[in-house]
Amino acid sequence: MDGLEVLPVRGIGDVTIGDDLAELITANAPWLRDGDVLVVTSKIVSKAEGRLVEVPADGPEREAARERALAAETRRVVARHGPTAIVQTHHGFVMAAAGIDASNVDKTHLVLLPADPDASARALRDALLERGLRVGVIVSDTMGRAWRNGLTDVALGAAGIEPFRDHRGEIDPYGNELQLTQMAVIDELAAAGELVKGKCDQVPVAVVRGYPGAGTDQGAGAVALLRDAASDMFSLGTAEARAAGLRDAATLPDAPAGPAPAAPDAVARALATVAGSLAEGTEVVTTAAGTLRCAPRRATPDALMRLGADVHRLRAALTAEGLSTVVTYEDTAAIVAVSAARGMSL
Amino acid sequence: MDGLEVLPVRGIGDVTIGDDLAELITANAPWLRDGDVLVVTSKIVSKAEGRLVEVPADGPEREAARERALAAETRRVVARHGPTAIVQTHHGFVMAAAGIDASNVDKTHLVLLPADPDASARALRDALLERGLRVGVIVSDTMGRAWRNGLTDVALGAAGIEPFRDHRGEIDPYGNELQLTQMAVIDELAAAGELVKGKCDQVPVAVVRGYPGAGTDQGAGAVALLRDAASDMFSLGTAEARAAGLRDAATLPDAPAGPAPAAPDAVARALATVAGSLAEGTEVVTTAAGTLRCAPRRATPDALMRLGADVHRLRAALTAEGLSTVVTYEDTAAIVAVSAARGMSL
Repeated sequence: MDGLEVLPVRGIGDVTIGDDLAELITANAPWLRDGDVLVVTSKIVSKAEGRLVEVPADGPEREAARERALAAETRRVVARHGPTAIVQTHHGFVMAAAGIDASNVDKTHLVLLPADPDASARALRDALLERGLRVGVIVSDTMGRAWRNGLTDVALGAAGIEPFRDHRGEIDPYGNELQLTQMAVIDELAAAGELVKGKCDQVPVAVVRGYPGAGTDQGAGAVALLRDAASDMFSLGTAEARAAGLRDAATLPDAPAGPAPAAPDAVARALATVAGSLAEGTEVVTTAAGTLRCAPRRATPDALMRLGADVHRLRAALTAEGLSTVVTYEDTAAIVAVSAARGMSL
Repeated sequence: MDGLEVLPVRGIGDVTIGDDLAELITANAPWLRDGDVLVVTSKIVSKAEGRLVEVPADGPEREAARERALAAETRRVVARHGPTAIVQTHHGFVMAAAGIDASNVDKTHLVLLPADPDASARALRDALLERGLRVGVIVSDTMGRAWRNGLTDVALGAAGIEPFRDHRGEIDPYGNELQLTQMAVIDELAAAGELVKGKCDQVPVAVVRGYPGAGTDQGAGAVALLRDAASDMFSLGTAEARAAGLRDAATLPDAPAGPAPAAPDAVARALATVAGSLAEGTEVVTTAAGTLRCAPRRATPDALMRLGADVHRLRAALTAEGLSTVVTYEDTAAIVAVSAARGMSL
């Protein structure tokens, strides 16, 4: 590889519903070549496709209309903080405000994301193929990230370019086999494109020239970059997950004994967690491996109620360690049977 | 702006402790110019700086040594899943395995991140300034992200280039003022650089040419991109935050009444949460706004203990709604006083 060029496409101007993006782009970039990668801001794709919502120009009605649009675009809320809502869209993107944007559009409209950005990318690629141009197309947008300040552009849709460059299985000069190194190159290309675009100066398309292999095959689409919530270690905001943990405690079921005994150190950690929170009259004794007997020093109604609350504290702490519990009540004591839950701990 | 070039620097070869990176880079890229941005893979910076740990080539001793190195580089664990540990390093980066890498190094060493990547970037920039070259320097590494598959390169350190391009306050062609649009351009430059590097083919430096303003001022450094855990909505993994919520439930303190009354709908949500989990004999009655009276149908020791557990379930559910609770025990009933906690709900 001899390097890349990243080139702005100027002169596209305002895009409105029904505009032919292939025509607009080729008219303003007659220098396009086979193998180029077009990085197209999702906003002009949305506008050409008519993905707009009419809203009042200001006032509480505007805010209410915005909330309705957000709810309609949202599959699930990931995190909320003050006015910020991070949601997963129906496409699967995790974005602030579902990617709905009020910039670069007149005050009576909001711009939604394209309904199917991979399909939009394919349609544009096909339209350019009909003009004899064999290019890759990335539909890009600006996103925030966890852990790092500032925004970067990433790929919402892609066609004519593979989303990943996979180094897995390659051997480095020291003989080590590379692992876990699947580069999200369409996100990197989107980021490179952003560097020559402006937010306000109407450069909605950039071209990356010289990237090997672009334009040849259709590729798997940007959908390949979506991590499903079930396999995402950050599927919920910290506050939301913490509230979910409290709800777990509120609804803790009797769990059938797991296949394995409870690890003594996990039980010890749970006992340490609750140590400072138990009522003065509550005594917890380990009577056998994985069996805790909780009893009040004196069996007054008050002490029995406090004991019940303490048993539930203990169960919550044991659950936090990944353990399963079942409670049985004896005359004036509660027996908590503890076992490993599905053999794993958090 | 007329576009960017992204150029690989070839021929640098193996880097070892004490190597002069400024010398190696200028020898292999005599075409460098003022205003260029060098994107330097952190690994060669680490190697030149001797940030290596000796480890056995294989066996359980190697794994133990790797665990020790990880613990030493870790400020706090963010999330764990199977063998994967996402941690926050002492620098503040959130990365898998604290960025410790075993690739592109012989089998008896692990490579740590540079101790202070901004300082490394400044030192390299200064060394190049002494040679009459006024460039920007980014020290980059490969990172995973929440929500999206695949890795991208980002900036760990930067000098001679501003980390952000700030669009806030700009007016778009429709008269809308842009908000929240602070682009993390050094991450985008790192990503662009990665596109011309290889993992195994020894291209550890890329040059981005044509980026406006590069090389002039020192800049705020990549440290500006670090979001502190307190203001991060994703400071913990979902499983870890959920476990923290369970521990919150285990240690729930009596909370002094908040400044505002509890919102009735939040109390109703909490009651709905526990509805299916309460013991058959437990009755919960709203006796006044923000006051819940919990009593057993019959005051047997068994029912009193279950009632105590149910009161704690209810408190956990109320806490999940952002409410504060205080319990007082009457003869054979518990009174839960509920109020808004610091005026906010989750």
